[in-house]
Amino acid sequence: MEPAYTTGTFTEFPGFPTTAWGAMEPGAPLTCVTIKRRTPGPTDVHIKIKYTSACHSDIHQVRAEWSKTGVFPMVPGHEIGGVVEEVGSEVTKFKVGDVVGVGCMVDSCRSCRNCQRGNEQYCLPPGPVMTYNSPAKYPHCPGHAEKRTQYGGYSQDIVVHEGFVCRIPETLSLAAATPILCAGITVWSPIKHYGLKAGDRFAVAGLGGLGSMAVKFAKAMGAHVTVISRGKSKMKDALEGLGADAFVDSTDAEERKAAADSFDFLLDCIGANHDIEQYMNLVAVDGKLVLVGLPPSKVTLSPFSFVAKRKSLCGSMIGGIAETQEMLDFCGEHGIECEIEMAKIEDINELYERMLKGDVKYRFVFEPTTW
Amino acid sequence: MEPAYTTGTFTEFPGFPTTAWGAMEPGAPLTCVTIKRRTPGPTDVHIKIKYTSACHSDIHQVRAEWSKTGVFPMVPGHEIGGVVEEVGSEVTKFKVGDVVGVGCMVDSCRSCRNCQRGNEQYCLPPGPVMTYNSPAKYPHCPGHAEKRTQYGGYSQDIVVHEGFVCRIPETLSLAAATPILCAGITVWSPIKHYGLKAGDRFAVAGLGGLGSMAVKFAKAMGAHVTVISRGKSKMKDALEGLGADAFVDSTDAEERKAAADSFDFLLDCIGANHDIEQYMNLVAVDGKLVLVGLPPSKVTLSPFSFVAKRKSLCGSMIGGIAETQEMLDFCGEHGIECEIEMAKIEDINELYERMLKGDVKYRFVFEPTTW
Ligand SMILES: NC(=O)c1ccc[n+]([C@@H]2O[C@H](COP(=O)([O-])OP(=O)(O)OC[C@H]3O[C@@H](n4cnc5c(N)ncnc54)[C@H](OP(=O)(O)O)[C@@H]3O)[C@@H](O)[C@H]2O)c1
Ligand SMILES: NC(=O)c1ccc[n+]([C@@H]2O[C@H](COP(=O)([O-])OP(=O)(O)OC[C@H]3O[C@@H](n4cnc5c(N)ncnc54)[C@H](OP(=O)(O)O)[C@@H]3O)[C@@H](O)[C@H]2O)c1
Ligand SMILES: [Zn+2]
Ligand SMILES: [Zn+2]
Ligand SMILES: [Zn+2]
Ligand SMILES: [Zn+2]
Repeated sequence: MEPAYTTGTFTEFPGFPTTAWGAMEPGAPLTCVTIKRRTPGPTDVHIKIKYTSACHSDIHQVRAEWSKTGVFPMVPGHEIGGVVEEVGSEVTKFKVGDVVGVGCMVDSCRSCRNCQRGNEQYCLPPGPVMTYNSPAKYPHCPGHAEKRTQYGGYSQDIVVHEGFVCRIPETLSLAAATPILCAGITVWSPIKHYGLKAGDRFAVAGLGGLGSMAVKFAKAMGAHVTVISRGKSKMKDALEGLGADAFVDSTDAEERKAAADSFDFLLDCIGANHDIEQYMNLVAVDGKLVLVGLPPSKVTLSPFSFVAKRKSLCGSMIGGIAETQEMLDFCGEHGIECEIEMAKIEDINELYERMLKGDVKYRFVFEPTTW
Repeated sequence: MEPAYTTGTFTEFPGFPTTAWGAMEPGAPLTCVTIKRRTPGPTDVHIKIKYTSACHSDIHQVRAEWSKTGVFPMVPGHEIGGVVEEVGSEVTKFKVGDVVGVGCMVDSCRSCRNCQRGNEQYCLPPGPVMTYNSPAKYPHCPGHAEKRTQYGGYSQDIVVHEGFVCRIPETLSLAAATPILCAGITVWSPIKHYGLKAGDRFAVAGLGGLGSMAVKFAKAMGAHVTVISRGKSKMKDALEGLGADAFVDSTDAEERKAAADSFDFLLDCIGANHDIEQYMNLVAVDGKLVLVGLPPSKVTLSPFSFVAKRKSLCGSMIGGIAETQEMLDFCGEHGIECEIEMAKIEDINELYERMLKGDVKYRFVFEPTTW
């Protein structure tokens, strides 16, 4: 039987070699490999990657948890901070030496109504070209004919169309800005789209990479912010370190009861299967539970849990490129960075296990230049 | 073991006798009984019921499908059209002979922030006093001390606080206006609240009492209206009778595929357990699936089905009293009535079976004066 996932070798497509960490097949441990990056074309930016960080989506995808399928071999990584090494002849936005970032997407159809509105993440089927776990999809993508596999940011170099590269404000530390390329935009976009207002009772469920950024953005926007976390181990840091206004231990039935029907906007950033109805019960009349976490299994809830009090369960996926730039500029102005732990890529497989336990404050960041 | 539902007799509370159809316990067939209505107090309106109709919620409740519990004995019915027979000394809104209607609620706390905004349906716990399957809940409710059971509209008389009575426009047939008190307001309220606009691609899933009213309202508001129904038996009537613009047979995979990601607003009026993800797949990027149907089991859907295209699953429950009056006035101006089948209350138990099959166009209406 054919495997359900794409197979190949890390060097099957033409280009220049560079070092990366990847997996040959779903669930395989990540190892150090040599991959080939395409020769930069006229609209391409070649970036020397200085920092890259681990998003929980990397785990889901390299283990094929979402759909039992994937584009392998796989190099994860879609939070990428680097410096421009060379630019193609037609590149206008960037020059050598610019400090830049790349997030979850590296291309899209560039013409559908969602792309035209700057919502490349909702590019109509076959959708955006993701930074990894994606082939080249459009005739304008280099390597389209051979369905070239895209490799992600756990690597020393990357080559990306200039339209999918963002500028990192000078006021930010590049290491601490890198996770914002996914963890930041994924919470920024729904906070903007679903209209969080100053004074709203906002809650974040799951204090990981995404959750920690959501606390910072919501505070900067003047909301009253509650962190909902399993147990009390993150309480002090949530209140004192991140500046949340309140804390709810989701494992404590009394605390859940006291918080029932109380939040205007609950952002669910939980990466594992969970009883979403328990969180819906904390949302106020006319409030929203916005799910950005992507647990592998279906979510299940009683119709009454949202019908009886006119609540909504909403979704949101990453964010558009212009919006990502807007967020980065906001971070620059407000001094918002991600809380990070510098880590060694050699430990990646164990670090994933720590992430699965929620044991990271709040993003592991790697330095590819040292590999 | 105590039964999980309230028990008693139809005549245990004081007042005047009248004829009704009710059930002693969950699942029992409905039979003709004598019940007692309270003596009208100073703010009460005594209504002679001319028409009453069967909502699918009557079936769910009299069979205790939602929660295995209920306030029994039960007289269902929350679509009530009648004529004012007498009024209390302090009643200002109505006089003898007025043509009026009563819907799902007969009282509420009258003071919480939701009641103050005219959202009595979202009255904070313990919530509104429902027309049946509800005790008197507040000190201002007559019979509060003895937790008087409220009896619904399958009856010849009802006594209701004037604040929960609406006026029926003269231009409407009372028989055809009666179902609007629930089937109408339940779809009107979310159409208004979630902001249906002229030109929006609107779909109604489940062409029953609620669904048929939704088609009429959405057409009157200038939306492009698609009916989604099981099979093609209702196609001609949907397009020609109700004036829908398009029809999708939900049992036909090809038709579902053609309609994928296409509706801005899908109103799900289905009364039985169903695969809601299949309907979510028909909603467009940034669109909403609003559930008003109340299937007994939990709904289940993949996170990707709404996260990946920024869709929302929203709820809505009936509507407020002022809003109900506004809707009735709109119906009066636009000549909107419910499509009805006159039926005999003696057949109620078989008529419920026909409703379970979706075999009614679109509401069974009864004439209590003939019982
Ligand atoms: N929608 C999108 O576009 C998008 C983009 C990026 C990521 N994601 C998804 O968002 C999720 C979170 O990503 P992340 O990188 O922030 O992950 P993370 O850093 O690992 O944080 C996830 C948090 O979820 C909580 N959690 C974990 N297991 C749980 C369980 N069984 N029950 C309840 N809570 C649990 C933990 O918080 P506590 O310790 O506080 O309980 C943990 O810190 C992942 O599913 C990821 O794939 C989605
Ligand atoms: N949220 C609220 O406040 C509120 C208020 C009133 C009623 N409700 C609920 O709304 C629902 C509909 O009420 P109604 O009085 O309009 O009911 P109805 O007249 O019986 O119509 C329900 C329709 O659902 C469709 N349907 C039935 N079984 C189905 C199945 N297994 N799969 C897919 N579709 C199915 C049928 O349409 P097709 O024949 O076209 O397929 C049927 O005509 C009920 O659950 C009721 O309790 C809620
Ligand atoms: Zn990510
Ligand atoms: Zn596109
Ligand atoms: Zn009803
Ligand atoms: Zn109230």
